[in-house]
Amino acid sequence: MTCPLRHEDCAVVLVHTRNPLNIGAAARAMVNFGFHDLRVVEPWQPSWQEARSAVGAASVLASAREFPNLAEAVADCALVLGTAGISRRNPVQPVISLPQLGAELPTRLPSGRLAIAFGSEKSGLSNDDFTHCSAILHIPTQLEQESVNLGQAVAVCLYELARHTHPAPPTLPAPSTPRPATAADRERLTQTLQQILHLSGYIKPGAEQSILYQIREMLHRFNPSADDSHWLLGMLHRIERQLFASHSRRDS
Amino acid sequence: MTCPLRHEDCAVVLVHTRNPLNIGAAARAMVNFGFHDLRVVEPWQPSWQEARSAVGAASVLASAREFPNLAEAVADCALVLGTAGISRRNPVQPVISLPQLGAELPTRLPSGRLAIAFGSEKSGLSNDDFTHCSAILHIPTQLEQESVNLGQAVAVCLYELARHTHPAPPTLPAPSTPRPATAADRERLTQTLQQILHLSGYIKPGAEQSILYQIREMLHRFNPSADDSHWLLGMLHRIERQLFASHSRRDS
Repeated sequence: MTCPLRHEDCAVVLVHTRNPLNIGAAARAMVNFGFHDLRVVEPWQPSWQEARSAVGAASVLASAREFPNLAEAVADCALVLGTAGISRRNPVQPVISLPQLGAELPTRLPSGRLAIAFGSEKSGLSNDDFTHCSAILHIPTQLEQESVNLGQAVAVCLYELARHTHPAPPTLPAPSTPRPATAADRERLTQTLQQILHLSGYIKPGAEQSILYQIREMLHRFNPSADDSHWLLGMLHRIERQLFASHSRRDS
Repeated sequence: MTCPLRHEDCAVVLVHTRNPLNIGAAARAMVNFGFHDLRVVEPWQPSWQEARSAVGAASVLASAREFPNLAEAVADCALVLGTAGISRRNPVQPVISLPQLGAELPTRLPSGRLAIAFGSEKSGLSNDDFTHCSAILHIPTQLEQESVNLGQAVAVCLYELARHTHPAPPTLPAPSTPRPATAADRERLTQTLQQILHLSGYIKPGAEQSILYQIREMLHRFNPSADDSHWLLGMLHRIERQLFASHSRRDS
């Protein structure tokens, strides 16, 4: 099922954030994953001013909007998700585990805007804040340390969200698949390697056949490209010549 | 398809990290998502000491191991993934987009350990580092700002990884899949083959480095099993001894 949510319809809301580094980190993650609508609720003012004026502060910070409370910050949004660990509270709202977000979005937000709210570093979102949330968004973590750093929580949530929104993250260029070696190429490698193993005294009398079969089987698995095969054959020929010359010298 | 990878078989490797806050953030994300094996390569010492001695530093930091280079840090691992943005380089290695990690793991790592390496804040992993990586792990981001903060990159990668790993001991992998060679096995093959190519006069002066990198890249693709690796190394050692003996005779 495809989700119609566009990046410009997703807002990140930071509530009562105190640490300017965290505000900056949240903004940076937004730019990384292609989101631009940052809203802050009653940030601690010195931090907010510091984060905004930081050298290289993303345009996300410059265009961020400030609100006196969460209700006003999310007033235009159809779905509001509040992030939280869940072991501490007995949630009234349904809990969405972050990996399930993509499956939940189409039914919970057939159209309209999404807001994801993040509470303060110290105490998270308040009970009052949660009453403004349609559901709790939970990052699955270990129970012994479920509190996620704010900047990292924003990054993880937006990484997941970006998988289910448009524009989709840029797709990777298809890797160019090299031309595989032919059976004849592989057999030349096999024969040359066997010859070298003879010259170096590796092959014990009677073991020729089984080693030949082992080399073939291995080359099938390695599946060398035509270039690999050409390159390896050059090496093996050089080694063969060298071993052959030393054989001749010794025998003469 | 289920993946048998256990949390204790996943290592996070921080290479040349400079910022103690980033080291701390990486460690915290590891605890959040249940990973414990942290390895650092040549960290900037003042940062490393500061991060380790921080109040509340996770046990992950206390038990972290320090290595002089990436090769030694990942020697016991079968699959080494290096994280990178991809627009800047024309990667030799295959690129795995992070959301595809779960689909790739069962085939790329039927058994053995996984390492995910993160480069320095400023320049990421070096080209030399990448030659020790089987594949590049790419967090899909917007092209205009693809550089992800280190602590956030670790969090996002481990969030994804945790979806495909088991905290509990898994069922045994299918008996037919051979144990893959470790990075140390592959590096021994690489070094021995290079030595043979030297002795046979294949390597022209100045070409050592590029041939070394080519061999590493090829072995990543061939993905030899532990048995292959053991067998090939036996052959190579025999050839090496033979060439060395003929060298000595000629020189005497």
